[in-house]
Amino acid sequence: MTTNNLLTQIRAVVGDDYVIAHPEDLLVYEYDGSVDRSMPRAVVLPANADEVSRVMALAYAAGVAVVGRGSGTGLSGGAITPPDGLQIAFPRMARIIEVDTVNRTALVEPGVINLDLDNHVRQFGMRYAPDPSSQRACSLGGNVAENAGGPHCLAYGATTNHVIGMEVVLEDGVVVNLGSAAREAAGYDLRGAFVGSEGTFGIATKILVRLLPLPETVRTFLGIFPDIDSACTAVSAIVGHGIVPAALEMIDALSIQAVQNVTDAGYPNDAGAVLLIELEGLHEEVAEVSGQVKAALWDTGAADVRIAEDDAERERLWVGRKTAFGAFGTIAPNYYLVDGVVPRTRLTRMLRKVNEVSQRYGITIANVFHAGDGNLHPCMLFDAREPGVMENAMAAAAELMQECAALGGTLSGEHGIGLEKKEFMPLVYTDADMAAMQRVREAFAPHNRLNPGKIFPDGSYFRPAPHPAGHRAGLYA
Amino acid sequence: MTTNNLLTQIRAVVGDDYVIAHPEDLLVYEYDGSVDRSMPRAVVLPANADEVSRVMALAYAAGVAVVGRGSGTGLSGGAITPPDGLQIAFPRMARIIEVDTVNRTALVEPGVINLDLDNHVRQFGMRYAPDPSSQRACSLGGNVAENAGGPHCLAYGATTNHVIGMEVVLEDGVVVNLGSAAREAAGYDLRGAFVGSEGTFGIATKILVRLLPLPETVRTFLGIFPDIDSACTAVSAIVGHGIVPAALEMIDALSIQAVQNVTDAGYPNDAGAVLLIELEGLHEEVAEVSGQVKAALWDTGAADVRIAEDDAERERLWVGRKTAFGAFGTIAPNYYLVDGVVPRTRLTRMLRKVNEVSQRYGITIANVFHAGDGNLHPCMLFDAREPGVMENAMAAAAELMQECAALGGTLSGEHGIGLEKKEFMPLVYTDADMAAMQRVREAFAPHNRLNPGKIFPDGSYFRPAPHPAGHRAGLYA
Repeated sequence: MTTNNLLTQIRAVVGDDYVIAHPEDLLVYEYDGSVDRSMPRAVVLPANADEVSRVMALAYAAGVAVVGRGSGTGLSGGAITPPDGLQIAFPRMARIIEVDTVNRTALVEPGVINLDLDNHVRQFGMRYAPDPSSQRACSLGGNVAENAGGPHCLAYGATTNHVIGMEVVLEDGVVVNLGSAAREAAGYDLRGAFVGSEGTFGIATKILVRLLPLPETVRTFLGIFPDIDSACTAVSAIVGHGIVPAALEMIDALSIQAVQNVTDAGYPNDAGAVLLIELEGLHEEVAEVSGQVKAALWDTGAADVRIAEDDAERERLWVGRKTAFGAFGTIAPNYYLVDGVVPRTRLTRMLRKVNEVSQRYGITIANVFHAGDGNLHPCMLFDAREPGVMENAMAAAAELMQECAALGGTLSGEHGIGLEKKEFMPLVYTDADMAAMQRVREAFAPHNRLNPGKIFPDGSYFRPAPHPAGHRAGLYA
Repeated sequence: MTTNNLLTQIRAVVGDDYVIAHPEDLLVYEYDGSVDRSMPRAVVLPANADEVSRVMALAYAAGVAVVGRGSGTGLSGGAITPPDGLQIAFPRMARIIEVDTVNRTALVEPGVINLDLDNHVRQFGMRYAPDPSSQRACSLGGNVAENAGGPHCLAYGATTNHVIGMEVVLEDGVVVNLGSAAREAAGYDLRGAFVGSEGTFGIATKILVRLLPLPETVRTFLGIFPDIDSACTAVSAIVGHGIVPAALEMIDALSIQAVQNVTDAGYPNDAGAVLLIELEGLHEEVAEVSGQVKAALWDTGAADVRIAEDDAERERLWVGRKTAFGAFGTIAPNYYLVDGVVPRTRLTRMLRKVNEVSQRYGITIANVFHAGDGNLHPCMLFDAREPGVMENAMAAAAELMQECAALGGTLSGEHGIGLEKKEFMPLVYTDADMAAMQRVREAFAPHNRLNPGKIFPDGSYFRPAPHPAGHRAGLYA
């Protein structure tokens, strides 16, 4: 079948208005939040699960690849579609179907925006915990695909801890249910395998999420440090005391400068680093832990410790954190964000490596990240118009990935592997490990027509320098 | 190859002393905590992962099924081995390899006993949260296979929430690593799929678990109620206030009688039901929530509310809960425990059904269960020597499973599907759902030689009466 025939059939399912196939209309669908680009053959905007199922069955019969697209905010190239492939996007499937206030769940369609869900359920005294920095734009479907994190995942866990069940359409259009409305599901936990499968297992058409009660009290601290090493020591001290803040975020000097260029978030311009710490819970609990947090900050060399006096000040501190990546535009026109994880006791060592790589490659690197999780986001700032700069940045990123792996960490905390990191997978997985993963993918998508070319190394994207032989003899050896 | 040749080869790997093949020595390996029995061809006791890998490669080459066995405390027949199959047991792989007090993890072998791990890490001010009632006997490997729960999983989640990574041997002897020592793992979350796969995906040879800091304060309440309905109302009231106790357990009148027959747990003999409630946390937090819990208990008709004055009294209250199933021996020689889940707002309705089924079938049923989770354990008490009694109990169990499913619940909270419930799977999953699960199993174990005959309906075990057509049109419809 020709692709044109396929599009004709798909138009009959979803209606002419909901198939986008003119190149000029497709421009916005050729990229996501990463540095990759590729224009899909067409974009389909289905209205419901049945249409998704029928469209996918048609694409399957025609041998055409399908890529689901949330809001296109992903940072690993996960929504980039091969030139002959179809993209399915969900602006018409963005309903909050039901909120169950007693069992504290919400049933949503994949196009619902993360922050819209959170705002909607607050009227019932609840919230949806995972809060990616892109939460104003990113969708629940994309969150499921990437197992999205966010500052408050330190205390509450990433998306996989908040998705109870899903209705999913497989490669061939078959609809299956994963998980359960009950707290536990019988049989295999395919729900868990699906979350974070980056669109390669299927497309979620309904998502049942867990909601949390709103905390009685929230208290937000800004710990101001002369340098990033002492801020890292503070992170270890807080976590080492058994305190699990709701959020524990690090913002380095360069990021402070970028943020303060665009908005006064209340970060002191001369600080070497700040820690943004949030405690949540009952009044008494927060009061007691506040004392411990303040003591840990002062003990580890804080120059100052501030507490947000009211919601407006709290909001301002967070706006700084959440707009940091946008603010980097005031320093350089392009950025490339590396998402890596190390055990949090090795944060200091990793940040020294970041600094060393920055100097050796001559690349400015800013650091804004989820310190409590050991989830770094070194952000390389450059002008992509300078010749060779992208290659240089990629080579520097490769060294950082290698160091994360060597320190017992991993390649991604929350952004996924996608296109960008697939050649790095051998840093943390053996061939047998990856073969097991690919067999599971084949169980869901035997023809590998869902988001093909992602996650697994195939030599088609940037290839890092070989890592030292024998540095990894099994994760738990 | 004959099985005898296979055993000769296996003896060369593990040593003669560590292959058990005489029928009289095999008697203890023919059953687990369920009602099923089958004598394996032999039991192998390997010393390390390499031996497990070599033994499994030999069995694979010989076409022989392999079943992993923890401590044999499972309640769904998960460790029952086909007559020609090999069992692998882990008394020689029971080391706590490493405790990382800073990153709060422990690396253990599969034979480590749940309570031994918890006791070991308490010296460092930490604990391992999942606490099945069998925790004095059950092993971490078995806990992983069944995704074991326990009273404290209400607040902390089941085993899957506490296992970060594993070294796993597949059907053919290949060793793979699932998950990561870091908080997040790159690629698919096969760790999540593996936990709870009931021994059908592979055998875990190393398990990396998360530890939690010990709470500053623990306070244990006994809420005494005139009847089980009012106790259910109290459960709803507590959870509805946004309180998540560390544990919230229900013990009905019959179970109270059984417990008090064997030990004075301090449960009043004339109560209709008691709730055992535990709060944990900081002093101030526990103090505040204690007031709310007490108010909820009194408001919903408690006849009395007691608080454990010291550790000894607390221990005594828990001994009652944890010995209840053993104590049922004072009422009838046999029991059959049904593990089912309903949304907790439907507990009252489900318990009425249990009562109705008890009367209609003429079977005594006791109820001791994780009320906060909606995870029921109706326990049928009978004398298996009476003709027809097992069939009667199984038919009653089938009705209870059907009711759980009809109320939006599921077939198992923590004991697994195994042999006992495999014919019930169609109550909660469509053919497409189960086909997806089986394809994933094939990805891990293409020849289905690991714990074959479990989880999926094949007509070889008790078959429930057909459920009403159309009562389930998709979990999220």
